[in-house]
Amino acid sequence: MIVPRSIRDLSEALNKLPGVGPKMSMRLALYLSVSNKSLASELSNKLSAAVSNISLCTICHNITENDICSICSDESRDHSKIMIVETPLELFSLEDSDIYKGMYHVLHGVISPMNGIGPDDIKIDSLLHRLESNDINELIIGLNPNLESDSTSLFIRDRINNSSISITKLAKGIPSGSNIEYMSSGTLRESLESRTSL
Amino acid sequence: MIVPRSIRDLSEALNKLPGVGPKMSMRLALYLSVSNKSLASELSNKLSAAVSNISLCTICHNITENDICSICSDESRDHSKIMIVETPLELFSLEDSDIYKGMYHVLHGVISPMNGIGPDDIKIDSLLHRLESNDINELIIGLNPNLESDSTSLFIRDRINNSSISITKLAKGIPSGSNIEYMSSGTLRESLESRTSL
Repeated sequence: MIVPRSIRDLSEALNKLPGVGPKMSMRLALYLSVSNKSLASELSNKLSAAVSNISLCTICHNITENDICSICSDESRDHSKIMIVETPLELFSLEDSDIYKGMYHVLHGVISPMNGIGPDDIKIDSLLHRLESNDINELIIGLNPNLESDSTSLFIRDRINNSSISITKLAKGIPSGSNIEYMSSGTLRESLESRTSL
Repeated sequence: MIVPRSIRDLSEALNKLPGVGPKMSMRLALYLSVSNKSLASELSNKLSAAVSNISLCTICHNITENDICSICSDESRDHSKIMIVETPLELFSLEDSDIYKGMYHVLHGVISPMNGIGPDDIKIDSLLHRLESNDINELIIGLNPNLESDSTSLFIRDRINNSSISITKLAKGIPSGSNIEYMSSGTLRESLESRTSL
């Protein structure tokens, strides 16, 4: 075998990353081992730091370096609202927009029978447990708009016993700055049905 | 800042990889820190192993875990021929094809004034030194066919003092299994000019 073992091993590990194919992983392995060893060392250290330091918040399952994340431990935020999101990525986008000051609950996925993901594979139980508190008055569905999210939302709604909680979801419609010409017919229909008064 | 420091650090390091943008690097950082910590640990170990173990062969500059690579130290190969290639990737492809049993010389780049790469930035001096030996009778240009490689080849040819060395290059033409319809006019012209007798 002409490729040295440590390059082959590194390339095979890189190939396991989502979105990285065999050609790209060999290129990256060579780049890191020959052209940019300092980046390779940096990555090695940052990876082991992330593995040691990152865990999920015991309340909302957002990623954190502590037991409880900075949002759940922020007393100045509105603890009566919980928004469910699929992954921390959506939470980061919402926080960057600085438009929401309530709590979150990160499901880490949506129910997807096609991909073998059932209700027990995502963080629904702990959400239902949080919603039993009388301090919560609104659950906001902040999932990406698609069929799997819709059925996940309905599954959760049907299991909420606390009738004092109002359940809302982010509005669907035409994004600001976009062009009606390029919208799908589904988006146009939803935007017409949800039209608001001027 | 809502993104934990070790995720941000890891994402910034991943973003320095060629072909990995800011969105993909944040996705990978989350995937590695939350969904697949075992792959993160594996990558961390493989990276530091590659950094420690991989160096360049002191003769041909191929990557190796020893001082001299497995090709240069193979006595059964033809040491009278040297093929120059741009990176170890082309060497691996040629070796996989099992069609060449001579030596190699890895330039680690081609002369490219546009990218600020001059003759001293690639492994030309050590090639010229190797070619001073009387044991070498052929230099094969195995560079990717493009303008920069052509000028690199000419630069090297003009500096070879040893007149007993014949200099050849890999044939250009229509690849086996491809379709004339889809070839560029440059490829068609070269393939006509280099036509061979049936």
